[in-house]
Amino acid sequence: KSSAPKLPLYPLPPRSKPDNTVLTEDLKTPDNHVTRDPRLIRLTGTHPFNVEAPLSNLYDEGFLTTKDLHYVRNHGAVPRVEDSEIMDWEFTIEGMVNNPIRMTLADLMRDYEHQTYPITLVCAGNRRKEQNIVRKTKGFSWGAAGLSTSLWTGIAIGDLLKAAMPQHGARYVCFEGADKLPNGYYGTSIKLSWALDAERGVMLAHKMNGETLPPDHGKPLRVVIPGQIGGRSVKWLKRIIVTKEPSSNWYHIYDNRVLPTMIGPEISADLPETWKDERYAIYDLNTNSATCYPDHNEILDLRGSQSAYNVRGYAYAGGGKRITRVEVTLDKGKTWILADISYPEDQYRLASEGEILYGGRIDMSWRESCFCWCFWDLDIPIAQLQAADDIMVRAMDEAMMVQPRDMYWSVLGMMNNPWFRVVIHKESHKLRFEHPTQPALMPGGWMERVKKAGGNLTNGYWGEQLAGEAEVVT
Amino acid sequence: KSSAPKLPLYPLPPRSKPDNTVLTEDLKTPDNHVTRDPRLIRLTGTHPFNVEAPLSNLYDEGFLTTKDLHYVRNHGAVPRVEDSEIMDWEFTIEGMVNNPIRMTLADLMRDYEHQTYPITLVCAGNRRKEQNIVRKTKGFSWGAAGLSTSLWTGIAIGDLLKAAMPQHGARYVCFEGADKLPNGYYGTSIKLSWALDAERGVMLAHKMNGETLPPDHGKPLRVVIPGQIGGRSVKWLKRIIVTKEPSSNWYHIYDNRVLPTMIGPEISADLPETWKDERYAIYDLNTNSATCYPDHNEILDLRGSQSAYNVRGYAYAGGGKRITRVEVTLDKGKTWILADISYPEDQYRLASEGEILYGGRIDMSWRESCFCWCFWDLDIPIAQLQAADDIMVRAMDEAMMVQPRDMYWSVLGMMNNPWFRVVIHKESHKLRFEHPTQPALMPGGWMERVKKAGGNLTNGYWGEQLAGEAEVVT
Repeated sequence: KSSAPKLPLYPLPPRSKPDNTVLTEDLKTPDNHVTRDPRLIRLTGTHPFNVEAPLSNLYDEGFLTTKDLHYVRNHGAVPRVEDSEIMDWEFTIEGMVNNPIRMTLADLMRDYEHQTYPITLVCAGNRRKEQNIVRKTKGFSWGAAGLSTSLWTGIAIGDLLKAAMPQHGARYVCFEGADKLPNGYYGTSIKLSWALDAERGVMLAHKMNGETLPPDHGKPLRVVIPGQIGGRSVKWLKRIIVTKEPSSNWYHIYDNRVLPTMIGPEISADLPETWKDERYAIYDLNTNSATCYPDHNEILDLRGSQSAYNVRGYAYAGGGKRITRVEVTLDKGKTWILADISYPEDQYRLASEGEILYGGRIDMSWRESCFCWCFWDLDIPIAQLQAADDIMVRAMDEAMMVQPRDMYWSVLGMMNNPWFRVVIHKESHKLRFEHPTQPALMPGGWMERVKKAGGNLTNGYWGEQLAGEAEVVT
Repeated sequence: KSSAPKLPLYPLPPRSKPDNTVLTEDLKTPDNHVTRDPRLIRLTGTHPFNVEAPLSNLYDEGFLTTKDLHYVRNHGAVPRVEDSEIMDWEFTIEGMVNNPIRMTLADLMRDYEHQTYPITLVCAGNRRKEQNIVRKTKGFSWGAAGLSTSLWTGIAIGDLLKAAMPQHGARYVCFEGADKLPNGYYGTSIKLSWALDAERGVMLAHKMNGETLPPDHGKPLRVVIPGQIGGRSVKWLKRIIVTKEPSSNWYHIYDNRVLPTMIGPEISADLPETWKDERYAIYDLNTNSATCYPDHNEILDLRGSQSAYNVRGYAYAGGGKRITRVEVTLDKGKTWILADISYPEDQYRLASEGEILYGGRIDMSWRESCFCWCFWDLDIPIAQLQAADDIMVRAMDEAMMVQPRDMYWSVLGMMNNPWFRVVIHKESHKLRFEHPTQPALMPGGWMERVKKAGGNLTNGYWGEQLAGEAEVVT
């Protein structure tokens, strides 16, 4: 018999850095109690804290992201909760319920069954910088690292809602956090039926990668909704309100929407009914992918012995759907090559029934939904890379919806998912790769370059000059 | 008090023709017992019967389609079932169930609760003719009328499955029809979890628009699956088999799949593992739309007093998702105009709880899914039409996935959903409109014309000659 410890079949999170401190730039902000990793790229100045990791760092951490590199989207100051106060954190389930509940986190931990599974959170603004270059939106410039995956532990929100007994006619669940903002507490809603559907896996989470939630991720309690945009996963959760109508919270109406593309910043201010149209509210993520390697400005020395380069990146879909294929083109979409895909998430499905991780059941074996990103890769012979102008990637989901060639611009700049294009520059004995953009105000990327050169980024050819463009002849 | 009968809030089917007969061309086929409407366009010669209505006729019938014009996809001869035999029709629920069931339609009618609601069925091949013009697929040439909507009455399949008690580890439900074909009985499968989910509305139907199922639509019993391709809604149902794995039926493996685009007809024959890859099997419909008016070859006389033309058509999405916007472009996608959308399906949601139609409860008030097509329309000033080369339409679904500019060609030619393009020809005092194709072997449409003129239909510009094409300059 071997005495070696049995390794789990599924990935565990990489070790997070033990020595994060409060950073100098945070000392003069309300977040002067929050320790952070200096590698994170700030997207909205110093404060509030909105960050993504450098894309290659994010990819290098693998399937699971540490709290150090997990993207953060804060609308204001991080509510301060001491470790000693965690168990006394109070929250309510109220509204259209026959049994309103006020409870503490200690009650929740004691009275309900806990689950642990991996969930990829994605900001609706992921890849927004590309949109901002085409035309300025009202949103700040996310690169392609506005997503992260962790093991979340908590209780199925459906269990709690059932205990509160929703009334006939109730159709929505509103969530409200403790973060007080200019337009009130942050809040939003989802459909009650989704919250009650175990397959959808909506969770009230109190642990991230096995530890108490970090302050930036909702300490001590947050909602986590697999397959939907991060903006619905309310942090620092204080109130759960069952309602007949969607949330009327300012942030539910005026954030996380994809208005029709012809609505620009000026006219959008005069269209309250358009903002309130629930058809434009984003819930499920759309299908997306990006190339992580070659990285932006990566150099490939052609004098080496390498015969192929392993191009690789991530892909995800929404609403529990699986990515069913990822394809790469080296000739601007004329022909496509099938990439390999790995789905690390599926390894958790192999855990024994009842297996516990971080105090929660790994509740995956029966689940058919995909909650996480997957990884694609493709070996491309160097000679083919040398002959190509660019590498583009697109993913398709199980409903056979494929990422489009064209960007769908909208006033808030969200859900950007056209083919991700990396340009190949030929320099003496070298190839240099250029991503579409760099996050925040960082310069670089072919979009900025092409635009400066007068290229029309929305001509269906990435702003490359078509010989005789605008003279398309019928 | 008025004695006028109370009109329902929701559409009822148009009257179907009482005088359909067995058509001359069917007399020498095994279908010589089936009455049909001569307006239907045959897509595969005389037999088997695969038909769609002329697009304008389909649209003119409105939200609900009569049996006369409902599209039909038959793989072989229609099983002959006399009216007197209907109630004795036997079928089974077997496989991984603790309580296998063999029952007759009479048993089903007596022992289970019945429901009635509208469902749009769509053939996975809808709009395939467009793909066949780009490159011949293995499938026959559907136009854009390979879809129809009826009121279906039957029982929730979940009720029956629960009675059969699926065993632990069961994950799929296979269906098998009575239509014996070269490769066995027609059969396929869906996920067991979908069949058990009331929200998905999977039905065992015995009535269509209030009447016994017509022979072409599965008389006397069929599966009807909202939001999924028609190929999963097995007709002439004989067996329901609960399994651990997806169906191994020949038609499940070698039909209704979207293989990766680079797999052509020749190599596909040597790729058994690719065919068996469930990721390529189609279940949920993808998002699609088409223009019905102006019709193909419709003439608009510019000397009339009309100041605008009401362009209009249909749109649908899959998996219960709602179409959240429809947009029209008159300048090849540079700018888009928002169309109006009507959702007649929502009127059924207003029916009183417990209201009965055709012997089934109108079970819609609590349902949040969309099971049906919707209609879009847009008034376009005549001057704008005169100035434009074409009218294109695209729809977006609630997951913010939008129809793409580019066609996704695949070897079976399925799920074709690029922007639907109607070309505008300027003739003296007239505009003439040209659809992409005409169904079956019918000539006509700009795709055929452009291709014959040497245009490359996949250049991102509908094969229009780009001045200096192929000289895209980096």
